[in-house]
Amino acid sequence: MDYYSKQISKLIEELSCLPGIGAKSAQRLAFHILNMPTEQVEALSSAIIEAKRNVKYCKNCFTLTDEDVCPICKDKARNRKVIMVVENTRDLAAYEKTGKFDGVYHVLHGAISPMLGIGPNDIKLKELLVRLEQDVDEVIIATNSSLEGETTAMYISKLIKPTGIKVTRIASGVPVGGDLEYIDEVTLLRALEGRKEL
Amino acid sequence: MDYYSKQISKLIEELSCLPGIGAKSAQRLAFHILNMPTEQVEALSSAIIEAKRNVKYCKNCFTLTDEDVCPICKDKARNRKVIMVVENTRDLAAYEKTGKFDGVYHVLHGAISPMLGIGPNDIKLKELLVRLEQDVDEVIIATNSSLEGETTAMYISKLIKPTGIKVTRIASGVPVGGDLEYIDEVTLLRALEGRKEL
Repeated sequence: MDYYSKQISKLIEELSCLPGIGAKSAQRLAFHILNMPTEQVEALSSAIIEAKRNVKYCKNCFTLTDEDVCPICKDKARNRKVIMVVENTRDLAAYEKTGKFDGVYHVLHGAISPMLGIGPNDIKLKELLVRLEQDVDEVIIATNSSLEGETTAMYISKLIKPTGIKVTRIASGVPVGGDLEYIDEVTLLRALEGRKEL
Repeated sequence: MDYYSKQISKLIEELSCLPGIGAKSAQRLAFHILNMPTEQVEALSSAIIEAKRNVKYCKNCFTLTDEDVCPICKDKARNRKVIMVVENTRDLAAYEKTGKFDGVYHVLHGAISPMLGIGPNDIKLKELLVRLEQDVDEVIIATNSSLEGETTAMYISKLIKPTGIKVTRIASGVPVGGDLEYIDEVTLLRALEGRKEL
């Protein structure tokens, strides 16, 4: 890093703290940024700081948004009686892209992981239970299909079942377009267990 | 992009303009930045803008630096009679890392490329000729071993030869630790042509 002047080194150092960006990529990015037009650099720099300053949790579903209540929770056309529980805002966006889900969401911001010391109180779970005091018909658990995601799904379903609210889990199975020979055994067994009559 | 609130979308958009960062990586980076501590985000944002504002060309060798004259050109211990010509500041840093070159540099900021319409006047070549009016013993051409780098090397050597200054080119050959069977034919031929008696 001493081969560059102080401000270039500082920029490389800051960039290399980002995930998936090693020392070489950080250098490449830094010199690319130095060669960009000033307005574009200003736009990048201010997008970073403005997003950090203004983005907060939606008061209702806890997704990341720059308003008090996110556009989905505000939307009167959405069915508030169906809540899909996801681990993070990116997962919410993934379902929104399908354009077929008209309920609302609840973003946990994580999943229960005894390995990493993340317990039920470290994610937005109490906040979900508070929401269930309203009139809710169904909670769809769409946490990831990982160990942590499954643990969280089991935990949530056990919490909610006594209330009488319907709790469902998104299906596991072979991804559409997936080639059976490349799919792991656990997924294949799940797909078999979850088979449907045609 | 409409699945995220305005400022998150803006951040993703700005990040995806960087080289090697596609839509998915930009999303991942954006959410990582939103989860970073505020001070760290401020440091990143200001490192970007400060570097862009203050980094300029060294008046002498044209490397990128935040001073008028870069530390290498200022260093009285360096031999000003030997100038190594490189394409960019990263290449300069690569040679500085070896710690074995005690001459000075000249950064061209590009290479001649008829394909991309980059001619001799688009790189810092005139500035090199001006420097050669001083007392210079040798110009070492360390442009890349690509078509553009070779073209530039040939062009520079033809320009300088009439002045009587010694012009050399860094050697092409098999990289140290390289396995012959994986090396391209052109490199193998270069290595053969450049063979030395033991």
